[in-house]
Amino acid sequence: MTHKRYAVLGTGALGGFYGACLAKAGLDVHFLMRSDADHARQKGISVNSCSHGEFTLNPVHVYTDPEQLPDCDVALLCFKTTSNHMLGDILPKAIRKNTTCLVLQNGLGVEDQAAQHIDPDRILGGLCFLCSNKVAPATIHHLGYGDIRLGRYRADGSPAGIDPLMKDIASDFQHAGITMNLLEDLLLARWQKLIWNVPYNGLSTLLNATTDRLMAHPHTRALVQDLMHEVAAAASDAAGRTIEHSFIQEMLDRTDRMASYRPSMLVDRDENRPLEIASIFEAPLAAARQAGTPTPRLEMLTAQLALLASL
Amino acid sequence: MTHKRYAVLGTGALGGFYGACLAKAGLDVHFLMRSDADHARQKGISVNSCSHGEFTLNPVHVYTDPEQLPDCDVALLCFKTTSNHMLGDILPKAIRKNTTCLVLQNGLGVEDQAAQHIDPDRILGGLCFLCSNKVAPATIHHLGYGDIRLGRYRADGSPAGIDPLMKDIASDFQHAGITMNLLEDLLLARWQKLIWNVPYNGLSTLLNATTDRLMAHPHTRALVQDLMHEVAAAASDAAGRTIEHSFIQEMLDRTDRMASYRPSMLVDRDENRPLEIASIFEAPLAAARQAGTPTPRLEMLTAQLALLASL
Repeated sequence: MTHKRYAVLGTGALGGFYGACLAKAGLDVHFLMRSDADHARQKGISVNSCSHGEFTLNPVHVYTDPEQLPDCDVALLCFKTTSNHMLGDILPKAIRKNTTCLVLQNGLGVEDQAAQHIDPDRILGGLCFLCSNKVAPATIHHLGYGDIRLGRYRADGSPAGIDPLMKDIASDFQHAGITMNLLEDLLLARWQKLIWNVPYNGLSTLLNATTDRLMAHPHTRALVQDLMHEVAAAASDAAGRTIEHSFIQEMLDRTDRMASYRPSMLVDRDENRPLEIASIFEAPLAAARQAGTPTPRLEMLTAQLALLASL
Repeated sequence: MTHKRYAVLGTGALGGFYGACLAKAGLDVHFLMRSDADHARQKGISVNSCSHGEFTLNPVHVYTDPEQLPDCDVALLCFKTTSNHMLGDILPKAIRKNTTCLVLQNGLGVEDQAAQHIDPDRILGGLCFLCSNKVAPATIHHLGYGDIRLGRYRADGSPAGIDPLMKDIASDFQHAGITMNLLEDLLLARWQKLIWNVPYNGLSTLLNATTDRLMAHPHTRALVQDLMHEVAAAASDAAGRTIEHSFIQEMLDRTDRMASYRPSMLVDRDENRPLEIASIFEAPLAAARQAGTPTPRLEMLTAQLALLASL
C-alpha cells in the first residue's frame, strides 16, 4: 500500500464500490457526489459485497463541488459516459497539477474525451469487470467480479507500457482486495472488451434476453460471432490491433460457461437509465467507417439501440 | 359478377372479411372454420368495416371438415403461414378437379408450398393490402385498405400473364366492393411487397415501434433503406426481377405519408400470436443465400426475430 490520496468522481455503483473498498483498507479517499451527498454525510456509504462482506464507511469525505476536493494523487473517473457532458465542468477543477486521472469508463475513446479537458500525459485508463448496483442512496450491492485492467493512455493510441505509478495504484487496489492487472497496451484492451460488449450488451438489451438465450439459439449465436468478427476487423483496420480468432473463441466459451447473465446495459434498460450507446457502439462504428471497414451488423445494432433509447 | 362458388379456407381476420363481403354481394361462399364454427353457425359472421359498414352474414355455410365442402370454383387460402403445416391435410381435400386455389398469404414461396399438395396449374396468388382484426369469435373489425393484387403462379417463377379466370375473379371481388388488380408477374409483386414488409414488419416488431418512429430517427430510417436495397438485390440475383430505386423511394414516401402505423406483425406480437417469420424473412434470406447475394442486415433481422419468437 502507498500513501496516495484518491478522489472518486461519481459515486455510484462503480465508484462507490471501489472507493469504499480503498477507504476501508485505510487509504485516504475523497468522494465527489451529487444526489447522494447528504445521505452519505449523515449515514455513510454502505456496501453489501459478495467478496468484501457487508460494511458501512462512515464518516465519508463528501464533496459536491470539485473545487472543494483536496489535491489528490489519483482521481477515479467513475460516472457513466452518458454523463460525459459534465467532463468540462469537473475535470479541470478536480485534476490538479499532480493528479492523475484514471478513466474507469466503458467503451472506446473515453480517455480521448477526458484528454480534451486535461493534460493527456496524466491520464490512465481502466477496464472494470464488475457487477454491482446502487440499490438505494449511497448503498451499493456488489454481485460479482470486480477486477480491473489498467493501462496508460497515449493520445496517438500507441502502447505506453507499464510505469511505476501504475504499479503503485495496482498495489493500493490489491491491498483493498481488488485484483488489478497492468496492461502494456490500453487501446488493445479497449477493443478486446468491445468484442464482448458489442454483441452481448447490444443484443441482450435489444431483445431483452440474457446471454444464455442468445447463445442457445443457433441464429443469434451465429450473429454474436459475426458481430465479434466485425469488431475485430475494425480493431485491425482502425487501430492496427490484431484480435485473434482464438480470443473470440475464448469469449464465446467463457459466455457459454456463465449462467443466465444480464449484461450491464440490459440492467440499465430495466432500470430506465440512459444507455452507453455512444461509447460502446457509436465510437467503434465511427472508427470502422473512418477506416473503411464494412460493419453492417454493428451499424444496424447501433441504429436499433439508438431508436430503442429514443422511444 | 359471375356465378362462381367460393370456398374460404381459414376464416379469420382476412378470410372472414373477404368471404363475408363476397357473400353479402350475393355470391355463393362456403367457410371452412375451426374454433369459431359453432359461433358462426348460431350467430353468423359479423363485420364492422370502415368501407363496407356494419353487417352480419347469417346464415353462413360453415364446415369444419374440408371433405364436406361442396365442389367450389375458387378456394381462398386465407390462414396464416404459421399454420401451413395443415396444408397437406386440407388442400387435397378442398381443392377438387375444377377448383382453383387462390393463395392469399404473406411472404415468399407460399404458392410453392401449396403446390406441394395440389396441381400447380390450379394455383393463383394474391397479395392483400388489408388492415383487419378478429376481435371476437367470427367477428371482424376492418380498419383500412383491402385491395388485392392477383397473379397466376408458375412453378418455374416465370410471368404467367393475365387470363379469363383471373378477370372473372376480379369481377366478383369488384362486385363485392374489393379492388382487385391483375398482375402479369406474380413473383415480381411478391418481391415488391417484401421491400415494404421486411423492414417495417421486422423492425417495428423487434423495436415495438410504429412506422413513423422508424422513419423519424435518421439511423433507423437509413437502416430501413439499407434493408430495402438488400431485398432488391436478392430479387435481382435470386429471381431476376429488377426493383428500381424509384420503387424504393415510393415505398419510403408512402410510409412517410402514413400516420403512426402498426404493421401486422407488430399487432401479432401484441396479441401473442405466432409471427410469420418463415415466409416473410427466412424465405427471401434462403433465396439470397442460394444466389450468393450478401444480405447481412436481412440475416441479422431474421436471427433477431427468431430469438424474439422463441422467448
